[in-house]
Amino acid sequence: MALIESVPNFSEGRDRAKVDAIADAMRADGVYLLDRHVDADHNRSVITLAGTPDSLFEAVLRGIGKAAELIDLTRHRGVHPRIGATDVVPFVPIEGATLEDCARMARQAGAEVWKRYRIPVYLYESAATRPERVRLENIRRGQFEGLRDEIATNPDRLPDFGEPRVHPTAGATVIGARKFLVAFNILLNTSDLEITRKIARTVRFSSGGLPFVKAMGVLVRGLAQVSMNLTDTDQTPIARVFEVVSREAARHGVAVASSEIVGLIPKKALPDAAASLLKLENSAASPVLEDRLATAKAGIR
Amino acid sequence: MALIESVPNFSEGRDRAKVDAIADAMRADGVYLLDRHVDADHNRSVITLAGTPDSLFEAVLRGIGKAAELIDLTRHRGVHPRIGATDVVPFVPIEGATLEDCARMARQAGAEVWKRYRIPVYLYESAATRPERVRLENIRRGQFEGLRDEIATNPDRLPDFGEPRVHPTAGATVIGARKFLVAFNILLNTSDLEITRKIARTVRFSSGGLPFVKAMGVLVRGLAQVSMNLTDTDQTPIARVFEVVSREAARHGVAVASSEIVGLIPKKALPDAAASLLKLENSAASPVLEDRLATAKAGIR
Repeated sequence: MALIESVPNFSEGRDRAKVDAIADAMRADGVYLLDRHVDADHNRSVITLAGTPDSLFEAVLRGIGKAAELIDLTRHRGVHPRIGATDVVPFVPIEGATLEDCARMARQAGAEVWKRYRIPVYLYESAATRPERVRLENIRRGQFEGLRDEIATNPDRLPDFGEPRVHPTAGATVIGARKFLVAFNILLNTSDLEITRKIARTVRFSSGGLPFVKAMGVLVRGLAQVSMNLTDTDQTPIARVFEVVSREAARHGVAVASSEIVGLIPKKALPDAAASLLKLENSAASPVLEDRLATAKAGIR
Repeated sequence: MALIESVPNFSEGRDRAKVDAIADAMRADGVYLLDRHVDADHNRSVITLAGTPDSLFEAVLRGIGKAAELIDLTRHRGVHPRIGATDVVPFVPIEGATLEDCARMARQAGAEVWKRYRIPVYLYESAATRPERVRLENIRRGQFEGLRDEIATNPDRLPDFGEPRVHPTAGATVIGARKFLVAFNILLNTSDLEITRKIARTVRFSSGGLPFVKAMGVLVRGLAQVSMNLTDTDQTPIARVFEVVSREAARHGVAVASSEIVGLIPKKALPDAAASLLKLENSAASPVLEDRLATAKAGIR
């Protein structure tokens, strides 16, 4: 049975009751709510779901409908860029499904969101219909307010589904397909946004940094944060990113205060990070007692 | 069904064929060979087994017999202290067994080792018969050569089982019961043994350092190594030990070159270390996708 993940981002991170109502709207047989990250500074919630394709599709559609009902983007303030009440919805293959299956699902969802809710939809990443729409930041340029002004007059901003006007309170939604990613934020002990932006530029691939890393500098609770997406933690592990950011921070005379993972990570990401940060020179096999016992009991001595 | 671990240490780390023969002698139904750490510098092998009490007991006894056959301690050189061909044999409760069950097993094994092989046995840790024998280092004082000279004349060195004379080639063996421990070595980029010894003194509990840490400084491949046993990684986590050793190394103008885990660690030790070293400020729940899915599928939403 195919299993797909979806990680819809909603522009509400302060009113718990609204976030609960959106999450509840997505509950269904065959759908697992795996994680809920509610961020008051970003004024944004990230909900991680997994399920069978049909159940997950319906769950996500209901979540988008509920968010349109509850969120008024004309009154929304937060440090994270956004264009919609439901801002972005990726579909991610987990097992028994391909990236192309997820892209097809994204296109179907786009058509359905316009049909049901009259919210225009842009397709991104593996579902993108234009090269410049592969990258989410291009679609989100100018945010809700900028898009609202431009959508009718700038042909580059024509949505993939729907008419060229934003939904008055729910804006527009970006839907797409991508591989599994890790959202990783590092907070610095400074309130200097410029330093954070410099570090983000150094670490992200698009300006010559580490492969499979997207990064931006933002201010959160008065502290500078390097907010990152790691799109392949096998190729560019979490520990490597942490070390580069720590080193760059030191170069600017500041230090890492803490870090956070938004959503989920693959099973081996944290043990891999520990091995790297501890400089462990170990054999290939896992040194974990429970793993060895399970392997031994399964008869693979 | 009770499951007990045993981690016999044998004084052979250079001749693979001999280590294989000893490991093969311990194979049996109901016994899992979980790990084998062969160290040429220490000239020592650490084999991790787990099994049901009766099967494990017989397996360990056969391993001790095979080691006595193959290892001649009068020709043994290595950087790690040792008094026997089979140097030390702890029994460790894993599931369905207590530390007292393991201590009983250690006493039975001690009697049997003397009876079968004429190797004198000392009991240590939770199986110790005298307070000064709780600590392994006290029993091993002066190593094989020192014990050989003293055993007949010094009443403090009377073995718990057997006559007061070492086996001519297999020496003596220390058998006991203890809780699960993590053997963790940190290598420094220096050949200054004195610095390593100073760091070991700073980090180990017995000289005022971290609780649940035993440490000694040794030279391995010309590099200084802080060789440690962590007896409770919940209370004093690996990351904390690593940070203290790194900081002390920096104080002495040297740095950590690498680290290694000898044998096995509990499942949560590495993720815990990563969380600590990355300064992760996360929720209590595991951020691991596979764990969340398993929990969700089990119906605990």
